[in-house]
Order: sequence, then C-alpha cells, then structure tokens
Amino acid sequence: MNTPAQLSPEADARIRTSFARQGFMEKLGVELRGLGAGMCELAVAFDASLTQQHGFFHAGVAATLADNAAGYAGYSVMPEGSTVLTTEFKINLLAPARGEMMRARAEVIKPGRTLVIVRSEVYCSADGTETHVATALVTTMCLVDKGDGPSIAARSI
Amino acid sequence: MNTPAQLSPEADARIRTSFARQGFMEKLGVELRGLGAGMCELAVAFDASLTQQHGFFHAGVAATLADNAAGYAGYSVMPEGSTVLTTEFKINLLAPARGEMMRARAEVIKPGRTLVIVRSEVYCSADGTETHVATALVTTMCLVDKGDGPSIAARSI
Amino acid sequence: MNTPAQLSPEADARIRTSFARQGFMEKLGVELRGLGAGMCELAVAFDASLTQQHGFFHAGVAATLADNAAGYAGYSVMPEGSTVLTTEFKINLLAPARGEMMRARAEVIKPGRTLVIVRSEVYCSADGTETHVATALVTTMCLVDKGDGPSIAARSI
Amino acid sequence: MNTPAQLSPEADARIRTSFARQGFMEKLGVELRGLGAGMCELAVAFDASLTQQHGFFHAGVAATLADNAAGYAGYSVMPEGSTVLTTEFKINLLAPARGEMMRARAEVIKPGRTLVIVRSEVYCSADGTETHVATALVTTMCLVDKGDGPSIAARSI
Repeated sequence: MNTPAQLSPEADARIRTSFARQGFMEKLGVELRGLGAGMCELAVAFDASLTQQHGFFHAGVAATLADNAAGYAGYSVMPEGSTVLTTEFKINLLAPARGEMMRARAEVIKPGRTLVIVRSEVYCSADGTETHVATALVTTMCLVDKGDGPSIAARSI
Repeated sequence: MNTPAQLSPEADARIRTSFARQGFMEKLGVELRGLGAGMCELAVAFDASLTQQHGFFHAGVAATLADNAAGYAGYSVMPEGSTVLTTEFKINLLAPARGEMMRARAEVIKPGRTLVIVRSEVYCSADGTETHVATALVTTMCLVDKGDGPSIAARSI
Repeated sequence: MNTPAQLSPEADARIRTSFARQGFMEKLGVELRGLGAGMCELAVAFDASLTQQHGFFHAGVAATLADNAAGYAGYSVMPEGSTVLTTEFKINLLAPARGEMMRARAEVIKPGRTLVIVRSEVYCSADGTETHVATALVTTMCLVDKGDGPSIAARSI
Repeated sequence: MNTPAQLSPEADARIRTSFARQGFMEKLGVELRGLGAGMCELAVAFDASLTQQHGFFHAGVAATLADNAAGYAGYSVMPEGSTVLTTEFKINLLAPARGEMMRARAEVIKPGRTLVIVRSEVYCSADGTETHVATALVTTMCLVDKGDGPSIAARSI
C-alpha cells in the first residue's frame, strides 16, 4: 500500500465538512482517521450498541465504514463544486468482526471522470492483532454543479 | 409478491430472539415488521442521526436493513439448532433515500442446504408515496451445530 | 413480469445492428430472442464447447448472457446517438446450468440519465422444465455523442 | 504481489485435468499460464470472435477469465477428492479491454473450509503496455466427496 499524495487544503476541508454533516457518523462514533488523494480511512471503537446476535460488530457497521471510506476516497479525486454518491457496492465478509476497534481503508483503483471505482478493506483489531474482516468494491459517482449540502436536487444516478 | 407461508412458532421465536440480541438494531430503532417462511421485513423511522451529508438516509442504513432482513429471511428456512451469517452482499442504490420511513423486504430466491440466496428491496415513503431506493442480492450461510448466541466459535465461512 | 412497451423501429434497428457487430455472440451462437422498451432476451443452445468441467454450461456463458441482455435492455431506454457500456455486474449462480437451452431475460429496474440499472434472470430448460440458474444485477452506462461502432474513444467510465 | 507457494504435483495435475475438461476454454483459446497454491493465471489472445460492438474484448470474456481463474485459484487450496463451484462473483469493468492479449490473475484472499474468497485482476496488453481493465471478487465453494467430472450430483450450493 502506497502512501497517497497529499490533498490540497481545499479538498481536505471540503471532505471534512461533508463528513461532519453526516449524522450517522456521529451516531456510530466513527472517526475520520486518514485522508489523502484517493485514500480515506475511517475507524470506530467497539460498543455493544454496534453488535449482531453473536456479539461481534454488525455487518451493517462494516458495510457502512466500507461504503463511507470509499465515498470520501472517491470524493478526494473529484473536482471542486461537485458532490459524491455511492451508486453500488459489494462486500465480502471474511471473518467474524471481533475486536476493540474496526477500521476501513479505501483506495481509488480507477479515477474515471463520472465514476470513481474504489476498494475498501476492513480490519478489526483485538489484543494487538489485526484481522482482515471484509473487502468491498464500491462505485462512486461524481455529480457536478451540485452542492454537497442539503439542497441537492433529488437525483442519484 | 406472494404471501409467504407462515413460520412455525419455534422458528418465529428463534428469529425474534436473535433479532433482540442485535444491539445495532436497537441503536438504530429498527423494527421487525414482518416474518414468514423465506421472508422478513424491517423498517426504521427517519431521524437526523441516520443521515448522510445531503440529509437523506445514509447508504449504510439502507445496507444494514437490506443485509439484516436478508439474514433473517434466510434464517427462516434454516433448521433448528443452526445459526446464520451473511457471507457477502451487493447493493445498488437507485434513488435518494428520502422520506419519513425506510423499509427493507427480503425474500429467499434459492434455499440451498448451506447457502441461502436472498433478494432485498429497500423502499422509502414520503408523503404517502413509496419509492424503490435500493436492491440487494445477499448470500447467507447456514452453520449447523452452533448456537445463535454469543458463544459461537470464531469462524465465518 | 409485465409485457414491455414496444420499441420504436429506430431503437430496434440500432440494437440489432449493435448486436450483429458483436463477434462473441456469433461465436457462441447466441440469438436475440426478444426486445422491448427496457427488456432484452438472449438465448443459446447447449453445445459441448460451452461447458465447464462437470459438463454443464460454463458460468462464463451465463455471465455473458446476463451481461449482454442487460446491456441491450439498458440501451433500449437510452437516446439515439448514444452508446452503452457495462460498468459492473454481480451474478449469483443458483443451480447447475444443465439443459438444452439457456436464456437470459433482462429488465430495467432504474432508468437513470447516466446509469441504467438492470436485473437479468438466467434459466436453463431441460426436458420441458425450466430452472432458474442465475440472477444478476448490472450497471449499464450511457455515453452520449459517441457512435456505437468501432470508432469509440477509449474511455469506459 | 507475492510469489505463491508451489502446488503439490497431485493438486497441479488435478487442476490441469479439470481445466482440460472445460470445453469453453478450448473454444475461446484460453491458456492456463500459471498455477500455485492459492493462485491461477489464465490468458487469451485477441480474436475478432471475442469482441463486443466497439471491437474490444467482450465483457463476457473478461468475466469468464476472472471467474475461471478464481475457480482454480480456489480449487488449489481445497482438499483432494473435492470439486469446486463458483457461487457468485462481482466484476467492475475499469477500462476498454483493448489489446492483443487479455490475462486474469486470481489470488485467494480467504481460504475458508467451505467458501474460498478470491480476487481476480484482469489486464490487457497492447503495444507492450499493460492496462488494468477489470477487477472481480469471487466466492468459490468446496464440495467434498464429489468427483470433479461429469457425474457430479445436481446441486450447486
């Protein structure tokens, strides 16, 4: 995994502002841990309120991290004035998502003009060991001439 | 969409117990709205804490509902004494997830002995109109001779 | 499954011309069996040259039919002067693809301006019985101001 | 990309025998170019009979290579006496599949006992330059106590 190029201060601020507007991130306690050109990393600490029936992180939490990290990795290579939407993703759950912390690291694999394809890897750390718990492929879409805030017109794709 | 066959009282109880153990469902306020042989429906009311940056339901919420409804639709056709895991899913986000309520309806399309393939459709209702906002294909896996509770051995697939 | 609206003669001709340009369809012996607004059906007869190691239709044949039927279902709702590309698809193989004939029926589920989302169902018929052997979700993309022929500029997404 | 461990002569022979039974590989002219523990590489030369409407390799060819390379990468880590099936895959098409040669390289990312998850990368080479044209995530399934030949009982999952 390469060190991504640094983002411009404008792109960095645009992504952090967008992230801060997502009520769902605050509710889950997700932190924005890393950001670069074509890269985003999110993390969340374990809590009993994030679990499925066996007491592990719920697959919905893994999917949320994978999707959202991918969205911001994609957004990081989109032009100023655009907004980003996920149009689809696929996730394979590889191992029980057990541990004190879950993180998703997303990297752009194809920066198209309209579609930006991103891979997200999800890991759990328990007792100092990290396990690869999920892998996802995500299609993000760039919408130009739309704000990234609440006033976006109602179209997705 | 056909009316699913009724579940046995045992299977119905087994699924409701499993659902009640998922801390993540309680955190999001998800309700188990329907259950049948090969069918499950979940719903959640809109709240600002479930949103993405444009103020719609976050894709992670749609994915969580689609995955979890599929898991229980799959579990409904699995034998007593088994437990269920999602091994992978793919979701297409079709329209902005805007409205007062989001629901996911999952139906089994292939009840294999080990793998049960499920389709989930996600809808949002706003002002009395329902919009199809996402469609998902989910692979659920039956693990036999495992409890469905916290003591499950650490294997997923 | 609804009867699709009829295509205009122009769209019908545009799709048949495009299909006829695909060398791979001729090689496999695939026939264009049905076409409507938002719908396409393709079929291929069994041949030992289309098999995997157990003697059934190869998953690659099922994927090819599912993808290509989806592509033309998507193309049928795109404007004149455009061309179509598949940007991604996901297929679940539900049962052994055994029989004298395989067909894929694709229907548009979301006709976006840029992306058209399509579902394909694949069936095999053996001894007068049809089995559902695969289901796919396909994202097709509309490129405007490009011809549909060999001169397309080298961009996919 | 790491060099995979070498296969035992028995596993190597088992995979080559299975590959040779696939009529579809012969029809397309696909070659088995590499094989290791958890790795398989397939390649096919360009031919006008493998094209879509713009004259590039058809997405069905890319999907076939990605699926089949993944199947044999998965099979390489399964026990003697088993057979392998693909249960689902997802492929993102990243760039026009243009060139003299297409190859798919598959590597196991999670060798489960029942399900083996594999990633396939597809490349095209033109004029000495290789382009990454597709990426796929594939779930392969191990069936024990089944031969790998034509007599397999009719179950997929």
